[in-house]
Amino acid sequence: MDKYKVTFHPSGRSISVDEGENLLQAAMEAGVHINASCGGSTTCGKCKIKIAGGAADSPMHPKLSPAEYEEGYRLACLTSIRGDLNVEIPPESQVDKAALALKGDREQASYLLSPKDIYQLVQGWDVDPTVFKIHVEMDPPTLEDNVSDLTRLITAINRQHGINGISTDFRVIMKLSRILREAGWKVTVTLVLTRKGYKLINVEPEADSRQNYSIVVDIGTTTIFGQLLNLNECKVVACPDGICDGTRLFALAEASDYNAQISFGEDVIIRIVYAQKPGGLKKMQETVVGTINGIIEELLGMSRIDRSLISHMVVAGNTTMTQLFLGIDPKYIREAPYVPTAHFIPPVRAVHLGINLGEHVHVYTFPMVASYVGGDIVAGVLGSGIFQREALTLYMDIGTNGEIVLGNKDWLASVSCSAGPAFEGAGIKFGMRATSGAIEEVSINPHTYEPMILTIGMVKPIGICGSGLIDAVAELIETGLIDQNGKFRLDGATERVRKGPDGYEYVLARKEETRINDDIVLTEIDIGNLIRTKAAIYAGCKVLLDSVGLSFRELDQVIIAGGFGRHLDLEKAMFIGLLPELEIGKFIFVGNGSLLGARLLSFSQALLKEAERISLMMTNLELSNHNGFMNEFMAAMFLPHTDAEAFPRVQERLRLKKKAA
Amino acid sequence: MDKYKVTFHPSGRSISVDEGENLLQAAMEAGVHINASCGGSTTCGKCKIKIAGGAADSPMHPKLSPAEYEEGYRLACLTSIRGDLNVEIPPESQVDKAALALKGDREQASYLLSPKDIYQLVQGWDVDPTVFKIHVEMDPPTLEDNVSDLTRLITAINRQHGINGISTDFRVIMKLSRILREAGWKVTVTLVLTRKGYKLINVEPEADSRQNYSIVVDIGTTTIFGQLLNLNECKVVACPDGICDGTRLFALAEASDYNAQISFGEDVIIRIVYAQKPGGLKKMQETVVGTINGIIEELLGMSRIDRSLISHMVVAGNTTMTQLFLGIDPKYIREAPYVPTAHFIPPVRAVHLGINLGEHVHVYTFPMVASYVGGDIVAGVLGSGIFQREALTLYMDIGTNGEIVLGNKDWLASVSCSAGPAFEGAGIKFGMRATSGAIEEVSINPHTYEPMILTIGMVKPIGICGSGLIDAVAELIETGLIDQNGKFRLDGATERVRKGPDGYEYVLARKEETRINDDIVLTEIDIGNLIRTKAAIYAGCKVLLDSVGLSFRELDQVIIAGGFGRHLDLEKAMFIGLLPELEIGKFIFVGNGSLLGARLLSFSQALLKEAERISLMMTNLELSNHNGFMNEFMAAMFLPHTDAEAFPRVQERLRLKKKAA
Repeated sequence: MDKYKVTFHPSGRSISVDEGENLLQAAMEAGVHINASCGGSTTCGKCKIKIAGGAADSPMHPKLSPAEYEEGYRLACLTSIRGDLNVEIPPESQVDKAALALKGDREQASYLLSPKDIYQLVQGWDVDPTVFKIHVEMDPPTLEDNVSDLTRLITAINRQHGINGISTDFRVIMKLSRILREAGWKVTVTLVLTRKGYKLINVEPEADSRQNYSIVVDIGTTTIFGQLLNLNECKVVACPDGICDGTRLFALAEASDYNAQISFGEDVIIRIVYAQKPGGLKKMQETVVGTINGIIEELLGMSRIDRSLISHMVVAGNTTMTQLFLGIDPKYIREAPYVPTAHFIPPVRAVHLGINLGEHVHVYTFPMVASYVGGDIVAGVLGSGIFQREALTLYMDIGTNGEIVLGNKDWLASVSCSAGPAFEGAGIKFGMRATSGAIEEVSINPHTYEPMILTIGMVKPIGICGSGLIDAVAELIETGLIDQNGKFRLDGATERVRKGPDGYEYVLARKEETRINDDIVLTEIDIGNLIRTKAAIYAGCKVLLDSVGLSFRELDQVIIAGGFGRHLDLEKAMFIGLLPELEIGKFIFVGNGSLLGARLLSFSQALLKEAERISLMMTNLELSNHNGFMNEFMAAMFLPHTDAEAFPRVQERLRLKKKAA
Repeated sequence: MDKYKVTFHPSGRSISVDEGENLLQAAMEAGVHINASCGGSTTCGKCKIKIAGGAADSPMHPKLSPAEYEEGYRLACLTSIRGDLNVEIPPESQVDKAALALKGDREQASYLLSPKDIYQLVQGWDVDPTVFKIHVEMDPPTLEDNVSDLTRLITAINRQHGINGISTDFRVIMKLSRILREAGWKVTVTLVLTRKGYKLINVEPEADSRQNYSIVVDIGTTTIFGQLLNLNECKVVACPDGICDGTRLFALAEASDYNAQISFGEDVIIRIVYAQKPGGLKKMQETVVGTINGIIEELLGMSRIDRSLISHMVVAGNTTMTQLFLGIDPKYIREAPYVPTAHFIPPVRAVHLGINLGEHVHVYTFPMVASYVGGDIVAGVLGSGIFQREALTLYMDIGTNGEIVLGNKDWLASVSCSAGPAFEGAGIKFGMRATSGAIEEVSINPHTYEPMILTIGMVKPIGICGSGLIDAVAELIETGLIDQNGKFRLDGATERVRKGPDGYEYVLARKEETRINDDIVLTEIDIGNLIRTKAAIYAGCKVLLDSVGLSFRELDQVIIAGGFGRHLDLEKAMFIGLLPELEIGKFIFVGNGSLLGARLLSFSQALLKEAERISLMMTNLELSNHNGFMNEFMAAMFLPHTDAEAFPRVQERLRLKKKAA
């Protein structure tokens, strides 16, 4: 894909972008503020810029007069970049040089990997799915050769594909004789590799064996994510009418939803308690399966893939979510000494769990390490390749809990800290998941305090997701609207800061610019919740490093996982003290690490064994009675941290800001 | 057990018997005729004999006057032998010397093996059940040692019992955590050895691990047999109130019933056809499971063993019965080239099939050889040890079909011939299975033509079973009441031969002596059916031997299996031409060979692999288009056979009889 250079004036900042990229997004990525309060949905008309030279597609719009259009004015949110471009930012959006210095120089976001690159984190595997289909042809039986149908089929598989030691699912045997004859002794069979060898799970009349799909699911406490994979092509299925046009989100067959168990309680503990009630466990199991079935319907609908073509399902979840999904009472996860029922779960038939997939589909559950370090983390460690590398790596999965893994190819250690679901939208007044309409990027003009917001799908905003929250808090502190304790400064500099029903708040989007007919605000309570969340995660990392006598500076690599959508602004995450302050080059953002691992496991037999090896080699550090953790947590309850020396770059920027003020 | 000598006068014949044996049975076994037409039920009073000396218990009876009792007269059917005994047979029961010569000298019935001896046919196995229970104790988890419950259990099994490579049934995992804690970390676990290693199928609070039982079932086309085994003691369970007192049959937990599928048709072909109707297969499956569940209830009731103590079920059946039991359409078994669906069936959960046993119980199905040589035959070959011996052995299983195996440790060949269910009571006017009230032994006085009949359980007769039928026909021909074509000689010598509604017949028991308020007769049609049955079986043996260039004389051993109850009189079976005429010493009667094999498989892990090896090494000879078979069948439609030279001893006896007449 062609790369073009876009230069913004008067700051002179530039950024390299792909052909067709949206100009408002490019500006946000370059750290160039352009007022925009409708999320990029082309309704507010505030993102007016002038094309000083170069190629861009940008239509007329009622917010532009014909004369303005003639002079080169465009709406940034309506502009697709078609060549090198010079863009002039109008005065009302401009940030002066002094303010600009505060914002720091943005490094190119190399930590965001392409879908192809992300599979390169793990080495030494080929596309060789755990569940695969093959064609088999047999000679019809004769009086001289009348072995049983199953023996004929197994012998043919052996001869034609060199696969030995196959066991057969009883359900296949039940229908085998009829299918072999109806198919004229030419069939497509589905095999699965288990710990005990190959198992024949389906026989169909000759079909396209490339049509082999799996569904991978990350069961989070707050959010459930699913993707539909083409196993033979080693990728997430592209939706037939989903060419990514900048306004449509779901170019790929991926879907998510709140875990409907939330109605029984937001955190795992309340759910474990609920499961103890009569019928509670069954209800919780059915509830999570209901959410998953909804996601499966959505995936099948958007991809137009027939349900019968799904051969496999891989599930990664924390230990409590996994046990509730399987209907295994999680009671003892909650009671000291915090024991899960099993580390390894044998493949379970999907229909047995109530999952609406074919009779032959089995659910592979990622192995678990401990009560609070589950299959989602093993999947993330698998997907990010830590277990193969020399490099000392910190892996952080930021969800409802913060689970952190430290190690390399020789050793792995983990902790889990109860972080709360702020980044998934819970506990935040207008919080939401990273789906269409969520504010995912925020910039605030340090003089006018007007926001530039971008939403997922560039539609009118309906709430704010995790990455938007990090952006917003970082911008609020950088512009001085809040102090390092997260409290609003009430100097009346902007009417966007006001007293609302829940205390002080900042108005991100006004009623008329939203899809919910209500102002979207960020409250002081929201900010307090965010601080607790980020403090727990940072403290978890610190304690884990301390436990092996290492410091942040010794890390070679930090891998961030979490359902933040496409963007997590690492600089801003460091600015609020969620992440340690290290060179940007050391960070990799893998998005949903559990889904990444689940995809890889679907694609490769070799990684099946690796997943089990990872779960066995990981040592868990229990934080429940850990004094050091509470001290570190308290020390981190500040923006970015009470230990200023740990965040020198942030300190320098805050110092510059004070000087400028 | 003490052995006593009983001598019968005036013939002087004697027999060695066990302490407590019934005198009427001893006489029958010795070939001594005593009139008895009530089956030994103490009602007809005809079996009056005189004790001339020795020890016997025998109570008074209304049919004996006090004077007779004083003189030493007793009813034979009421007499238990307590020491060496001299018995005088009264004139009305006596058979003269000439007639006696005809009856031949009876060899001691060494071909009947004791329950202990029968397990010695197979060498090289120990009591080491496929499904077994062990005690496991664990240390409770601590914060320092909080591995998952399953890992703790598996590790403990490994350390305490040296068992590795255990996989776990998902259902065990579901309830594991609760049970371990309720049981105080002391549990009894049930493991099963499969082709893929050990599988953990049940965990209970600490229980008596010796209480480990299995149910073995032989699914015949006509009759289903079941036994309840104590796996650790390597025997059929003894019923608590079933001390064998000579009138009670079921000292052991064994039960049988007609296969209720009979209502859909007597032979496998009609049932296969029925299974093609809509819902037919399901109905057939449910029907056979219904019969099996009834047998299980009976076994549990008579043994007073709790259902939850049953850990395993082993099933042997012919291929059609096996497929119908499992719900696998047997359609192609019937159509050339006669292909079964599978030779090996993986263990199936009993509840999945509708079997009323615990959730954890799996059904092991004996592997099959061909469409008409099924798991019942593999079980018989396993149980009788043919596959281990140098000796050239003929194995004959006489049921609804006649299945015959020839070979030794190096090779095995089989044929199946459609024999018809005459020996199981079907196609015989008063035919019945070998259960209480069945006439199982018959002697006919060659002068008076009065019968001596013994029933199973020595109760009033209600019908005649396979061994009684063989006895009766042999006696009818020996006494000259029928000719060698099976037709009655109508010389008016006895009113017991008469014309009935179905043609000529012999009255075995009169209305007033039976429990069915009807005369029990044997008709010419019955005899014709018996001739067809025995001809098919004999012809099958002949063709199988011919196919490998061998003759009957070269056989080292003949093993007879079939549900004949306790007794099959080999001499009489040879006399009618069912069995080839060989030295009695070459014969072994194993009773129900399929159940024997099923028991052994339950008792020994080592034999699990042997069963699969047997099914793989056996070559089946297809008789469906075999010209030689039809010729042999026609030649055998005579009593004993059209080839008189093949039965020299029978010829000699018939010659003597003619001379005497």
